Amino acid sequence: MTAEIICVGTELLLGNTLNTNAQYLAQQLASLGIPHYFQTVVGDNLQRIHQVIDIALKRAEILIFTGGLGPTPDDLTTEAVASFFQIPLEEKREIIEEIAGKFAARGQIMPENNRKQALIPAGARVIPNPTGTAPGFILQPYKDIVNHPQQKLTIVTLPGVPSEMKRMWEETVIAFLESQGWGKEKIYSEMMRFRGIGESALATKVNHLFSLTNPTVAPYASPGEVKLRVSAKATSVEEARKIMNPIVEEIKAIAGEDYVGSDDDTLERVVGKLLQQRGETVSVAESCTGGGIGHMITSVPGSSAYFCGGIIAYSNEVKIRQLGVEVTAIEKFGAVSETVAKQMAWGVKERLGTSWGIGVTGIAGPGGGSENKPVGLVYVGIAQPDGDVVAYEFRFGENRSRDVIRQLTCGEALDKLRRHLLKG
Amino acid sequence: MTAEIICVGTELLLGNTLNTNAQYLAQQLASLGIPHYFQTVVGDNLQRIHQVIDIALKRAEILIFTGGLGPTPDDLTTEAVASFFQIPLEEKREIIEEIAGKFAARGQIMPENNRKQALIPAGARVIPNPTGTAPGFILQPYKDIVNHPQQKLTIVTLPGVPSEMKRMWEETVIAFLESQGWGKEKIYSEMMRFRGIGESALATKVNHLFSLTNPTVAPYASPGEVKLRVSAKATSVEEARKIMNPIVEEIKAIAGEDYVGSDDDTLERVVGKLLQQRGETVSVAESCTGGGIGHMITSVPGSSAYFCGGIIAYSNEVKIRQLGVEVTAIEKFGAVSETVAKQMAWGVKERLGTSWGIGVTGIAGPGGGSENKPVGLVYVGIAQPDGDVVAYEFRFGENRSRDVIRQLTCGEALDKLRRHLLKG
Repeated sequence: MTAEIICVGTELLLGNTLNTNAQYLAQQLASLGIPHYFQTVVGDNLQRIHQVIDIALKRAEILIFTGGLGPTPDDLTTEAVASFFQIPLEEKREIIEEIAGKFAARGQIMPENNRKQALIPAGARVIPNPTGTAPGFILQPYKDIVNHPQQKLTIVTLPGVPSEMKRMWEETVIAFLESQGWGKEKIYSEMMRFRGIGESALATKVNHLFSLTNPTVAPYASPGEVKLRVSAKATSVEEARKIMNPIVEEIKAIAGEDYVGSDDDTLERVVGKLLQQRGETVSVAESCTGGGIGHMITSVPGSSAYFCGGIIAYSNEVKIRQLGVEVTAIEKFGAVSETVAKQMAWGVKERLGTSWGIGVTGIAGPGGGSENKPVGLVYVGIAQPDGDVVAYEFRFGENRSRDVIRQLTCGEALDKLRRHLLKG
Repeated sequence: MTAEIICVGTELLLGNTLNTNAQYLAQQLASLGIPHYFQTVVGDNLQRIHQVIDIALKRAEILIFTGGLGPTPDDLTTEAVASFFQIPLEEKREIIEEIAGKFAARGQIMPENNRKQALIPAGARVIPNPTGTAPGFILQPYKDIVNHPQQKLTIVTLPGVPSEMKRMWEETVIAFLESQGWGKEKIYSEMMRFRGIGESALATKVNHLFSLTNPTVAPYASPGEVKLRVSAKATSVEEARKIMNPIVEEIKAIAGEDYVGSDDDTLERVVGKLLQQRGETVSVAESCTGGGIGHMITSVPGSSAYFCGGIIAYSNEVKIRQLGVEVTAIEKFGAVSETVAKQMAWGVKERLGTSWGIGVTGIAGPGGGSENKPVGLVYVGIAQPDGDVVAYEFRFGENRSRDVIRQLTCGEALDKLRRHLLKG
């Protein structure tokens, strides 16, 4: 029993709309354990919607449409489904009354073209739309034809407005799918996050797990972060955990400190939890990141428990006056140097009175690089509670964008702190 | 000459990844005037990628793939294209050297499985990937077969990482498509940015422009920002400008100060330009935004010309000690108050010696709100060169997320500064 997602709308083909509906429905199908292997986007064109139906019903049994249910002449989904299966459209009086009632509630009269939204293929079940005017429907065109090879074929239509679509999916479609016996075995998953290791290097270490079938293990990458998704097919969350846990533990053992956390445990949350466990605080001194590390730390609700603030020291003068960086250090080593990163970390820790201090200085580009100090060169200083200050050098590469270099710098700075916090 | 967008990746079917690539490519094709009628998403499965190619080449002549070019065994796009057209794969020595060089530049050795990324179908043209390890390719499998009905069939493969894909599209693919004579009549557009006015309010003011056909005017909205896209179909940028300019000027006149800038002229760039024109500087004192305003200002290359830094004053103690906020002001009015916002703005301007100072304090939530001071209440103080300090109150609403409230706060703070800078 597989599904296919079909999104209808010329605005998707023009790139005016980001297709968040496909992602939502994909997540929903995955969690219900209903596999789907294809998604199709098609414009507001009757003939091409017919083509898409023709292809989809050969490879899927549940066709889920979004979009094309509006009141305008270019909204064609209902008409296309009905004409493809040669089923007549019926005007539903109760839908007209409901739509007219919604307009009346806003003190308006229903425009004549909204009558179109009350047309439903004969024999279809209406999916009520509590917030908008476009109802959807569930149609099983061959349900009553015994031994028809596509007897179970199910068409679901939903509007394109994401909030309406989601509510109708949650309130009507899930229950219908479950009533058909689909979605009994669901897919549960844990997204494991890693830092300080590349996608290939991690993949090499856990290569033997990629061939598993239940649970499955799959890699994902974004700048600075690699993820492994461990998924299990099961009838309950407890059963799923039993299937996943041994593999999750094995991966944790393999990855060691490179494992950051899972699911909602982002880097900034994990750093916050570790600081709270230790009863410690941190402050930041930021040059090239301009406040990005502070912004990241404070994205976590309750971060005031361990973060009091910091100094954005973009100019040398602020580094010197607000952080106590030595003029001679800047003259001798340059503002982008190990020494200055250390002095920044120490300065902010001392002046703000925190357990830890982070100091960051680097060349984010695109200008400002030299042969000795290319774009992408970054120093992270960590001042520790015992008074020790260490620094780390990163070379993110001259070909990376300013945004990516700054994003990587924020992540690496917090990750270095995380690794220090893990030590006794 | 029509195209089809084919996105490869099981993560799209699982809903782990939002398909921003399809939107980007759709916009690009629209701007090149190359129609496309279908988009397909398929998982990492050789047989199903074959099925998709088989369907797509019957209805399109340019097949644009994204995803599936990585180093792991489930990256199958190259293999699928080659095997479908029965073209052997060749290992490109220069690609291996380039990938190895990228690892070496980061002090790493290339993992063996990255060799896979150097396999390219014989006769294909390599699309260099300046930032990542996965090159793409352009293949015209029937180019040399005279009178072949699909002689013009063109396969383009790009990686799934959006930043890599975009750069490769812009640096290589557009020029290739143009060299083939595609994209002669293009769609040129100007994206106009507005602040301080809602989408409906702006739409009402420019309603008479929405029915134009060349240029067209279409609205877009994101938190805090409204945009109008003015687009013209033309054979040259000069012709397009002639078509668009009268409408752009009309909209500017209607919007007044609510118009921020167009295209690359984001709020932070416009603020930077205005400061530079006036030969002035700014510093920031941030509480609830935690460094976000500084991060935004410094996202602009060359921002050191007008930004020296700031104080992240998350705790009251930092507000008092680093900014000179009066203890009595916090006791009397609370940390989230007009008075404290003003004192923060004044304090950072004085201590960092800048022309302007921005001070921000608010309740980003989800906790910390009260009846009098609900979540979403934010004060922005602006300290001016003449010594005057003003404050603005915002109530973004308790139902907004912490992220959105912080994002709105950063934008409104910079927008208030922009409006001050526009005055004589």
